[in-house]
Amino acid sequence: MQLFIGNQNYSSWSLRAWLIFSQYNLDVEVIKLTLFTDDFYKTLKDITPTAKVPTLVHGDIIVWDSLAILEYINEQHLQGKAWPSDAAERAKARAITAEMHSGFVDLRNELPMNIRARRKVELSNGALKDITRIDAIWSEQAEQYPDGWLFGEWSIADAMYAPVALRFLTYGVELSESAKAYQQKVLASASLQHWLEEARLDNDIIEEDETGEVV
Amino acid sequence: MQLFIGNQNYSSWSLRAWLIFSQYNLDVEVIKLTLFTDDFYKTLKDITPTAKVPTLVHGDIIVWDSLAILEYINEQHLQGKAWPSDAAERAKARAITAEMHSGFVDLRNELPMNIRARRKVELSNGALKDITRIDAIWSEQAEQYPDGWLFGEWSIADAMYAPVALRFLTYGVELSESAKAYQQKVLASASLQHWLEEARLDNDIIEEDETGEVV
Ligand SMILES: N[C@@H](CCC(=O)N[C@@H](CS)C(=O)NCC(=O)O)C(=O)O
Ligand SMILES: N[C@@H](CCC(=O)N[C@@H](CS)C(=O)NCC(=O)O)C(=O)O
Repeated sequence: MQLFIGNQNYSSWSLRAWLIFSQYNLDVEVIKLTLFTDDFYKTLKDITPTAKVPTLVHGDIIVWDSLAILEYINEQHLQGKAWPSDAAERAKARAITAEMHSGFVDLRNELPMNIRARRKVELSNGALKDITRIDAIWSEQAEQYPDGWLFGEWSIADAMYAPVALRFLTYGVELSESAKAYQQKVLASASLQHWLEEARLDNDIIEEDETGEVV
Repeated sequence: MQLFIGNQNYSSWSLRAWLIFSQYNLDVEVIKLTLFTDDFYKTLKDITPTAKVPTLVHGDIIVWDSLAILEYINEQHLQGKAWPSDAAERAKARAITAEMHSGFVDLRNELPMNIRARRKVELSNGALKDITRIDAIWSEQAEQYPDGWLFGEWSIADAMYAPVALRFLTYGVELSESAKAYQQKVLASASLQHWLEEARLDNDIIEEDETGEVV
């Protein structure tokens, strides 16, 4: 299998898909492309109809989109264990995952993932609402699973929210105690530390993701 | 089970979730709320954390978000048959579904679902690109499955694209021959006809979805 990803400092959707391989020690060749370059589009053009990362190539099978990749790997290589085994919990995990996949647009626009930076930004009401909602998700789940992942064991929902833990660090976003504990757990995990190490080697700059005042 | 939906003339995400119940004749109580009214928010406030439709209530289980509902029903009531049975095809169906769930933002903004209307709009380059991509998806699949649904049998991917067939009708969007054949198939289907009949009874107006020049 080959997983095409973007700049590790910036590409939040790439991180989401990459995490499932890392969490379960699955064999995959990671191919890193520099976002928005000719080489990026030239390489992806023949592989995916959308020319976006992440994209997974597995023999004849091509999966573009982070969530589709996560579902595919879960089904084909993990016997479904990357979703909670309880049907009610699984439904909730899928709903929370879908919120991230389709929404939080203000947060995603105003607080782009930019791992190496520490910044201050003025937030719109929409972005503040997004932060309140994410804090509520994290703390509600932390109450049910203290010290655990969102649903106890690691799941696709955790993959979806991992980049947000990094964004909250970059922009110094204040969280409730229990949400903060979850954020710390994500940041301290071996998978995320591995990604951060590699991200440190990235030195390309994507201007439009360099927002906020340096602190 | 109870499925909360919005105005049938406008609520494209509601239609997506509703379709799986209709296609498979599943028993469900449909509760229709008028979008953006006090009653809408009052009813949903105690049920869902996001106060959006569609929302499914099944005993203690609450599923908000169209895609999460479609996955839930597929798993719990359809033994998985609402995705293609072949793994490669299922991965592709999931990727195409994810494109709709997370993207086509310009199309969704500039061509809101408005079933009863016939309008002309000026489209941005982004929306034109979205239309080109959807035409490509529909015609590629139509080549593989002539006269069929996107993957032969009806699947969740068809639920995702159904509102687009209606939008293209409302705004008179020109399509390639094979994409048009798929659009016609969607519009002529018993499920969609059932929805259209009910939508005809809606007479609330949502101003922000009333875009374009009347033709
Ligand atoms: N819904 C997609 C979003 C993928 C996406 O937007 N990827 C960005 C990088 S994080 C990209 O490839 N951008 C390149 C472009 O838009 O040209 C997913 O979940 O994978
Ligand atoms: N990602 C969600 C989107 C749901 C959504 O945006 N629903 C709209 C109606 S189509 C809504 O409830 N809007 C009410 C509001 O935003 O206050 C899904 O797939 O279900």
